[in-house]
Amino acid sequence: MKKPLILVTNDDGFTAPGIKALIDVVGEIGELLIVAPDKPQSGMGHAITVNAPLRSTDIDYFGKHKAYYCSGTPVDCVKLGMYLLKDRTPDLIVSGVNHGSNVSTNVLYSGTMSAAVEGALEGVPSIGFSLCDYDWNADFTVAQHYIKSIVKKAIENPMGEGVCLNVNIPKLPLNEIKGVEVCRQARAFWDDTFDEREDPLGKKYYWLTGSFENHEEGDDADMTVLDKGFVTIVPIQFDMTAHKSIQTIKNWKL
Amino acid sequence: MKKPLILVTNDDGFTAPGIKALIDVVGEIGELLIVAPDKPQSGMGHAITVNAPLRSTDIDYFGKHKAYYCSGTPVDCVKLGMYLLKDRTPDLIVSGVNHGSNVSTNVLYSGTMSAAVEGALEGVPSIGFSLCDYDWNADFTVAQHYIKSIVKKAIENPMGEGVCLNVNIPKLPLNEIKGVEVCRQARAFWDDTFDEREDPLGKKYYWLTGSFENHEEGDDADMTVLDKGFVTIVPIQFDMTAHKSIQTIKNWKL
Repeated sequence: MKKPLILVTNDDGFTAPGIKALIDVVGEIGELLIVAPDKPQSGMGHAITVNAPLRSTDIDYFGKHKAYYCSGTPVDCVKLGMYLLKDRTPDLIVSGVNHGSNVSTNVLYSGTMSAAVEGALEGVPSIGFSLCDYDWNADFTVAQHYIKSIVKKAIENPMGEGVCLNVNIPKLPLNEIKGVEVCRQARAFWDDTFDEREDPLGKKYYWLTGSFENHEEGDDADMTVLDKGFVTIVPIQFDMTAHKSIQTIKNWKL
Repeated sequence: MKKPLILVTNDDGFTAPGIKALIDVVGEIGELLIVAPDKPQSGMGHAITVNAPLRSTDIDYFGKHKAYYCSGTPVDCVKLGMYLLKDRTPDLIVSGVNHGSNVSTNVLYSGTMSAAVEGALEGVPSIGFSLCDYDWNADFTVAQHYIKSIVKKAIENPMGEGVCLNVNIPKLPLNEIKGVEVCRQARAFWDDTFDEREDPLGKKYYWLTGSFENHEEGDDADMTVLDKGFVTIVPIQFDMTAHKSIQTIKNWKL
């Protein structure tokens, strides 16, 4: 049987241990093309590079696997990867493993997840993986265990047209993880603030900071389930239409 | 009656004629706080600045209206604007007028629309306006006509919780516009390619290019309706869960 073709990217940059951990797993399953940012691209959301060209170079960084770094965003990396494959279409796109959670509405801010959403837009089943540990030297062993089973299932089974998966893995030892739950995106939001400071010349600058607050009352949303010790999977699609509001706005009689 | 408080931003930068055209209209309706990028931020999607602080300075650029420019993305501008307002919450956030269309799935790539989505995430009714004319010196008169009526309706009527509007205005004289239609987001996608070039040192670089292709068969989606000469309004929400796929993925039995 021919090995599946898997396009790999991330948002922490090609040198991050998270993408190495992902490659170690998917490299056993499929033929890889790796196109990853040349620098950290956290928080880049679905940004693309429109006012500048991209630089990209093939690198000998991941052993036998064909790999490029790219000067652009995670979404740029997916687009460039699809281009570099020419007439071939990947069977799967995987992004991550992100160093830190991408639960709930963080799908919108996350470069890791935006790469997966771009995959869905391009008609390729895609998965973004995040480990709830921001440490550069995080232990990805438990994440790898779940990545292996999820990727295998994703290759064997249809995900649905225009769908990608948002997988978050708790920072827990394997024997403390309660299982895998498929959930919906939690209603949770950043309670932002800015830390105002003065530079040595007396000019102000602002650091974005804040805490991510769960506003869910139900117990079936990803953030709540993750906090209980489950691996969460949210299927994600890109139709952002508020279908229920179409009639509301029609009633404005514009 | 107290004037509504309106937060204004865009993605083409504070010097773009599009935001000036927007301010000319909403400045007659409400009290404004303008926080706009200090440079073009097209294609920045829902990116936020996490690895660097923001710079922001109050500027005397829009006459009587309180205004700041900001070194960040459109979403950063919304977050900073909310912070600068302290205990006050805006009645409305408006973004644009974008120089160019933001129809269909461009909501994901567009800084203009991501600012509006961020407004929805923050619980504020929000609208992104785009004129289908990429020209810096585009004529915004017709756009202003529709902005005025839409903003007035949005202040008088509830939009729905967590909803923002994606408004696209065709490049047509007023008497050729067929009306205003509330639609859903079209299934339309970028057919990307890259223009490969060599720099003077012989090194490769890649320009992202391509065409935006409508894959819709129905006639009630925004791109199709816009092409017929209507102003289109798509209500947008931020729950990206593919609810119909939850059972599909549960059946994987992970």
